[in-house]
Amino acid sequence: MNTDPAKVQLTADGRLKHFLTTEGLSRELLTEILDTADSFISTQERDVKKVPLLRGKTVVNLFFENSTRTRSTFELAAKRLSADILNLDISKSATAKGETLMDTLWNLEAMYSDMFVVRHADSGAAHFIAEHVTPHVAIINAGDGRHAHPTQAMLDMLTIRRHKGSIEGKIVAIVGDILHSRVARSQIHALRTLGAAEVRVIGPGTLLPKDIESLGCKAFYRMEEGLKDCDVVIMLRLQKERMQNALLPSEGEFFKLYGLTEEKLAYAKPDAIVMHPGPINRGVEIESNVADGPQSVILNQVSYGIAVRMAVMAMAMSGQQQEKNELYGNDQEEA
Amino acid sequence: MNTDPAKVQLTADGRLKHFLTTEGLSRELLTEILDTADSFISTQERDVKKVPLLRGKTVVNLFFENSTRTRSTFELAAKRLSADILNLDISKSATAKGETLMDTLWNLEAMYSDMFVVRHADSGAAHFIAEHVTPHVAIINAGDGRHAHPTQAMLDMLTIRRHKGSIEGKIVAIVGDILHSRVARSQIHALRTLGAAEVRVIGPGTLLPKDIESLGCKAFYRMEEGLKDCDVVIMLRLQKERMQNALLPSEGEFFKLYGLTEEKLAYAKPDAIVMHPGPINRGVEIESNVADGPQSVILNQVSYGIAVRMAVMAMAMSGQQQEKNELYGNDQEEA
Amino acid sequence: MNTDPAKVQLTADGRLKHFLTTEGLSRELLTEILDTADSFISTQERDVKKVPLLRGKTVVNLFFENSTRTRSTFELAAKRLSADILNLDISKSATAKGETLMDTLWNLEAMYSDMFVVRHADSGAAHFIAEHVTPHVAIINAGDGRHAHPTQAMLDMLTIRRHKGSIEGKIVAIVGDILHSRVARSQIHALRTLGAAEVRVIGPGTLLPKDIESLGCKAFYRMEEGLKDCDVVIMLRLQKERMQNALLPSEGEFFKLYGLTEEKLAYAKPDAIVMHPGPINRGVEIESNVADGPQSVILNQVSYGIAVRMAVMAMAMSGQQQEKNELYGNDQEEA
Repeated sequence: MNTDPAKVQLTADGRLKHFLTTEGLSRELLTEILDTADSFISTQERDVKKVPLLRGKTVVNLFFENSTRTRSTFELAAKRLSADILNLDISKSATAKGETLMDTLWNLEAMYSDMFVVRHADSGAAHFIAEHVTPHVAIINAGDGRHAHPTQAMLDMLTIRRHKGSIEGKIVAIVGDILHSRVARSQIHALRTLGAAEVRVIGPGTLLPKDIESLGCKAFYRMEEGLKDCDVVIMLRLQKERMQNALLPSEGEFFKLYGLTEEKLAYAKPDAIVMHPGPINRGVEIESNVADGPQSVILNQVSYGIAVRMAVMAMAMSGQQQEKNELYGNDQEEA
Repeated sequence: MNTDPAKVQLTADGRLKHFLTTEGLSRELLTEILDTADSFISTQERDVKKVPLLRGKTVVNLFFENSTRTRSTFELAAKRLSADILNLDISKSATAKGETLMDTLWNLEAMYSDMFVVRHADSGAAHFIAEHVTPHVAIINAGDGRHAHPTQAMLDMLTIRRHKGSIEGKIVAIVGDILHSRVARSQIHALRTLGAAEVRVIGPGTLLPKDIESLGCKAFYRMEEGLKDCDVVIMLRLQKERMQNALLPSEGEFFKLYGLTEEKLAYAKPDAIVMHPGPINRGVEIESNVADGPQSVILNQVSYGIAVRMAVMAMAMSGQQQEKNELYGNDQEEA
Repeated sequence: MNTDPAKVQLTADGRLKHFLTTEGLSRELLTEILDTADSFISTQERDVKKVPLLRGKTVVNLFFENSTRTRSTFELAAKRLSADILNLDISKSATAKGETLMDTLWNLEAMYSDMFVVRHADSGAAHFIAEHVTPHVAIINAGDGRHAHPTQAMLDMLTIRRHKGSIEGKIVAIVGDILHSRVARSQIHALRTLGAAEVRVIGPGTLLPKDIESLGCKAFYRMEEGLKDCDVVIMLRLQKERMQNALLPSEGEFFKLYGLTEEKLAYAKPDAIVMHPGPINRGVEIESNVADGPQSVILNQVSYGIAVRMAVMAMAMSGQQQEKNELYGNDQEEA
């Protein structure tokens, strides 16, 4: 795989046709995603939440790694776009019969699928699939290994824009296990592109990648320094299984140093917002007072998540359609 | 939790907005549910079974306790109302990541859900959720612990009304494990409110609650006395796991004393109907001759069950909508 | 069960109302299925793939034997016909509560289901259900034991017709474990009825039924003889669990004798097509060069599979509807 993921996801004239990573996408395109998502927040506040943009299209939720929560948000997004959706828990089905990944994909393509929402434990899986899939099938990355979780990053951008006016000029801190976080990686790229004044990562040395500053961040080991003057505090979910790898002494120790309490939050600006991708571990990375407090926008993130997923699905489908029409002409019957 | 469940489920002007229990609901309201369900029996007998009442709404099947059968009936009811439905088997998903019940609910609300169909092993769970949920999300109780199973009770009322003309003046016997039965509790309240002449419970002393007569029933320990002159015989499903708790000697012993045979049914009126919530244990609480015989309306109950679920879903959604319109005005775009 | 399966699946005037087996169906009817499927290939190539033929109907995927792949193709077919679909994994649900097969069916019928897609490990299960089901519920056989898999056979016929012009006059070889294959049995009946010049089965003596030639096939034990002058080579999937039964020495041995390689394929006509029901075991019954080569139409089979399933579902529903209208008159409200 030696092609550029940023290029793979765009049509010849620069429109989105897959959504694999925030890395390398232009400020204009990221802003188009946010604007489109804004419009889908409005449609969902109506009595009838559905719009017919993906009517008659087949979206396959292709989850090689189980995640009921993420799958549900994509399922709702697809249904509100009027698509038909097929949920496949791949770990339990075809591969059990010894079929290869490519055989599974080829079979699903042959069923006239229009879009695969892919979740996979291996970094680069969504990119690999986008490179090998039949033309006109859109791939949406719903999390691949430690690499990227771009819809999560974009819903975070939408949250910042809606609650702080813009991303431009803001100081944003990301706190926790940066090393293993695909969310952090996607956030950093999006924040940098959208003009954040400063992106900080805060955590113990064992959980900060050595080359993290090469992405344009500043690394901090102490909350009181890292949170100083921040506009936005993004807590990451602590993967408890990391504890057993001796990367961290204990949950209690982590909470004492990096858990977000009202005291630590006081280091940030008084109107700073608090974010978390969920599900939260209360009392581990964040205390309930803060999670449920006035500065928390954690549940707003969930709402915006559906809108962002609708946006990238609608845009990628439209990009694929445009490319197809340019190839074959637009003489197909439209209903 | 010190509010009255009957009140929690009504709007200020007495319309249904949640459906948690039959207890405390007025005769008028229960009758409105039955009348509405009658109309949905008609729509389901058409070639096209769908009506657009819940189009664009999102219904979440929130099953903390697995029940494929009950989930399927709510799923079909929601689909025939044109809703989008999300099935969540909560026992296997979010809670496995350590999320609290309230976090799960808040997240689902944030996804712009309109209705939760809740099944839970704890008595009072649906009421608790209705009290804590965001305004305008309707809660339908699909069974909570030993407390209530109100849609089952209402489909039983509809069955009696359709097969015996009315509930008023009828003698109804409920047979079996009353002690552990949420179905029996919901039936007793509905039968009393709708004017049954006499509600009897029949079972061994170990399976009849001590205070059962305070609900307005008469307790009987022998079938020949309890079934005498009955218009309706409702058999409860025997939960086999109770046997092991030494509350009962054996299946064979139970069948001998309380299993419904043609001989025992002869104690009731000749035109008495036989009901059972299903699935039936043939040869345990009912013999096949009776279950499949001319007095059995067990399969009619299943048909009416979809109609009753459509009715309470449509009514609760309408109650929520009305309350919302009164708060914010009815100026939203309607599609 | 002493009625003729071919008759059970037809209305009085010879239209399809169930689809249980290809055996005994007329050439006209099989051709009608293929023609109807052809039309659904066109609708699926449009931007909007859905047609409203089964709108408002309820299709139940009743899988007593798990098969994600086959279930998904029926689910997509039903959705593209605009039906509502309920997926039931019966092995995990009702039967776990001790309900009998007939009780499960009666309950689903009572929910106003219109069609059951049945997969079962027992030969004859779909036929049994068709004989006992309420009138007006259509049964589609999605594989029953060693007996039949008629939608697979018909998608194979469609593949031959589209890639070789017609079935008539063609020499077709079926290779592998004929003994345990419901697919082979259904193919042989369809090929004979549709006028194939010769149907050959090729495999080791232990995997060819003794009476196979009574179906009108010729049996071969060596690929070089069996494939000679063939127009179509159909490889069967090797069920690896058969190996352990000592019916076969080893995968390696099987591949050496019967695995389809470029060398063996050279015995057939130069323009012969290669088919396989999937999922393929690469290097066991077929080598990758052939599976992915220019003569392979394996992925076309998958595409045609959705169209064939749409065809039999639409035809059987129409047959049931016609029979119903003749009985009750066509005075029902149609939407």
